[in-house]
Amino acid sequence: MTNSKIVYLDNNATTKVDEKVVESMFPYFSESYGNPSSIYKFGGKNSAAIKEARETIKDFFGAEKSKEIFFTASGSESANMAIRGILSSDRSLNHLITTKVEHPCVLNLYKQLEKEGYHVTFIGVNASGELNTEELYAAVTDKTALVSCMYANNETGAIFPVEEIAQKVKSINPKTKIYVDAVQAAGKIKLNVKDTLIDMMGISGHKFHAPKGIGALYVKSPTLITPLIIGGHQESGKRAGTENVPFIIGMAKAAQLAQDSLEYEITTVKRLRDKLEKGLLSSIYNARLNSAAHNRVPNTTNIGFEYIEGELILLNMDDFGICASSGSACTSGSLDPSHVLKAMGVPFTALHGSIRFSLSRYTTEEDIDYTLEKMPSIIQKLTKISPFQKELKELRERKGII
Amino acid sequence: MTNSKIVYLDNNATTKVDEKVVESMFPYFSESYGNPSSIYKFGGKNSAAIKEARETIKDFFGAEKSKEIFFTASGSESANMAIRGILSSDRSLNHLITTKVEHPCVLNLYKQLEKEGYHVTFIGVNASGELNTEELYAAVTDKTALVSCMYANNETGAIFPVEEIAQKVKSINPKTKIYVDAVQAAGKIKLNVKDTLIDMMGISGHKFHAPKGIGALYVKSPTLITPLIIGGHQESGKRAGTENVPFIIGMAKAAQLAQDSLEYEITTVKRLRDKLEKGLLSSIYNARLNSAAHNRVPNTTNIGFEYIEGELILLNMDDFGICASSGSACTSGSLDPSHVLKAMGVPFTALHGSIRFSLSRYTTEEDIDYTLEKMPSIIQKLTKISPFQKELKELRERKGII
Repeated sequence: MTNSKIVYLDNNATTKVDEKVVESMFPYFSESYGNPSSIYKFGGKNSAAIKEARETIKDFFGAEKSKEIFFTASGSESANMAIRGILSSDRSLNHLITTKVEHPCVLNLYKQLEKEGYHVTFIGVNASGELNTEELYAAVTDKTALVSCMYANNETGAIFPVEEIAQKVKSINPKTKIYVDAVQAAGKIKLNVKDTLIDMMGISGHKFHAPKGIGALYVKSPTLITPLIIGGHQESGKRAGTENVPFIIGMAKAAQLAQDSLEYEITTVKRLRDKLEKGLLSSIYNARLNSAAHNRVPNTTNIGFEYIEGELILLNMDDFGICASSGSACTSGSLDPSHVLKAMGVPFTALHGSIRFSLSRYTTEEDIDYTLEKMPSIIQKLTKISPFQKELKELRERKGII
Repeated sequence: MTNSKIVYLDNNATTKVDEKVVESMFPYFSESYGNPSSIYKFGGKNSAAIKEARETIKDFFGAEKSKEIFFTASGSESANMAIRGILSSDRSLNHLITTKVEHPCVLNLYKQLEKEGYHVTFIGVNASGELNTEELYAAVTDKTALVSCMYANNETGAIFPVEEIAQKVKSINPKTKIYVDAVQAAGKIKLNVKDTLIDMMGISGHKFHAPKGIGALYVKSPTLITPLIIGGHQESGKRAGTENVPFIIGMAKAAQLAQDSLEYEITTVKRLRDKLEKGLLSSIYNARLNSAAHNRVPNTTNIGFEYIEGELILLNMDDFGICASSGSACTSGSLDPSHVLKAMGVPFTALHGSIRFSLSRYTTEEDIDYTLEKMPSIIQKLTKISPFQKELKELRERKGII
């Protein structure tokens, strides 16, 4: 197939780098390439540029001080740096709490920490993907070192009440630290850490139109963490390695642009997402909404196509240039169904045929119309060859379709 | 001062990104931005591009298999990943050997490992900066888990006999693993790990005209290391985080270009370096060569200007747009004299006034002529205001200068 048309509806996996971001980075490759740690002006001006970028990212987090911001190379590094960093600075508490629906980078880290002797409680979600917060509060003990909860789920878009969680948890055990993985929230909803009790928060640039390979970690002052990458004095001695000047500048630019388009996200992007969601649900009888959370980021929908295989749907969509995914890109390659949808109790019949569509400010009305035009025939074709014809007939009868 | 002329002689701190490298990365920002882990072709072609880049970097290392190559975000991350990764996979051996002149990222990691209970032996160098290999071999015991030795020193350019070290160490204790920090060797001399007993080797892209923020780690198959950043399946599960596609492509391009210009390094770059070195030593009476190692990378020289302060020299050079440094950029900010020159026993009188000049393929004859024209008057001016006039007079008398 040589379809060159691309309808990109996988923005929770990664995003197009905004051309203004590329422009902002450009001078830092071959022109202003000095090492920010150098004594001469040619390097020093890059140090000044990083300082300014740190200020911008501070504002993006809604943080109070720019020294609370550390640049990393990814959301995964931010999470590892925060969680490892806070735990190794105090080994007396051995209980950790997280959710069953965290991103693999967090979930796999907790599985490793279990092997290292930590006791970890994994909190579930309801059928809409909303966190069982009462279950979380009940799990907090005087041994709880850390509660780690994502801000918005990558697969369903469900927003978790992280500010309330931080407050409640600390009212039960003031020593418990709170890490929030805000990778899927940044650029979609406004962050405002300074008015919360959240201790640490991680973001990833490539989810909001900065390049892949840059992230940031907020650590509320004066919380102490030990570094994950030990070496030079960069990032206040908390993260060694010559600074990625162009990407730091680029992420700051992307943050500004994202901040400026938050209104557009909750109006236009949301309208297009809702149009896609409603359109698919109304035109395809074996479609069901997996992402029914009351509070949801504006760009994400997750739809289960019952009795068909997700991989097949994606491959057929790919033939039309429509890009989406069946779960986290970080777990693809595996054919296991989504751990998020499993935790929600999505029925087996829809679990394997669930597709996440995630939009961005680049998504156009034409993209959505095109997708709404192509999807019904794709699903119809695959439904016809499904081995579950008896069940499909029953479904049609239940829905009153002949 | 508004001198816009830049003579960049600090290429061991960082380098200009080659314009061909920028060009090679460009399409991966806003055009081909798909997540390499995605199922659709728009992402999959980035996965193919990474595969090709891994092949190129494999050849750059002179490695046998591309699965031995892991992409990281820096030389520091490569070192931390290798050293932490190899140690945590076997905790039975508790002795480590490294050198007194390693890069801070390695040295500081060993200082941390000492705090964690490891016993570390730091091997010294002679007055020319050459490693005391006999001292190293004598230190290997049946408890030695790891020998970690840089390939080329960042401050003096001295090349250490890492292949011989690997062979000798393993003949004493076959269980001992070898990590080589090749950050300052890559792009300056040919790497060839497959014919050695070196287990792991780290490089950093921005030292050979790739951008800051990308590195690689070679791990000889089937050596097992545990990941530093846990999470998704990327890099064979050894390093989580969405791949930095543009920088991976860019580093591969930079590696190719570096490989192609190795001959130019040992001819033209070396000739210019030697011209600079000889010129400074012959025109400035209180200049001494710190980097007299027999085997040296072709681009580096380190000169001590006796009885004057290095920071002052650098600031005066900066006024003429000449960029160089007094030690590792990763330690600047501190006024301590270089740990490398201290280990070499450079006399106190020259220690504080030592300057590293490091060239690249972008360094021109004019750059060197300009530097040779400006340096004598800078040094003369600073020598005049030195508080060590008596000692300087004695030095002049010893050298037969009136």
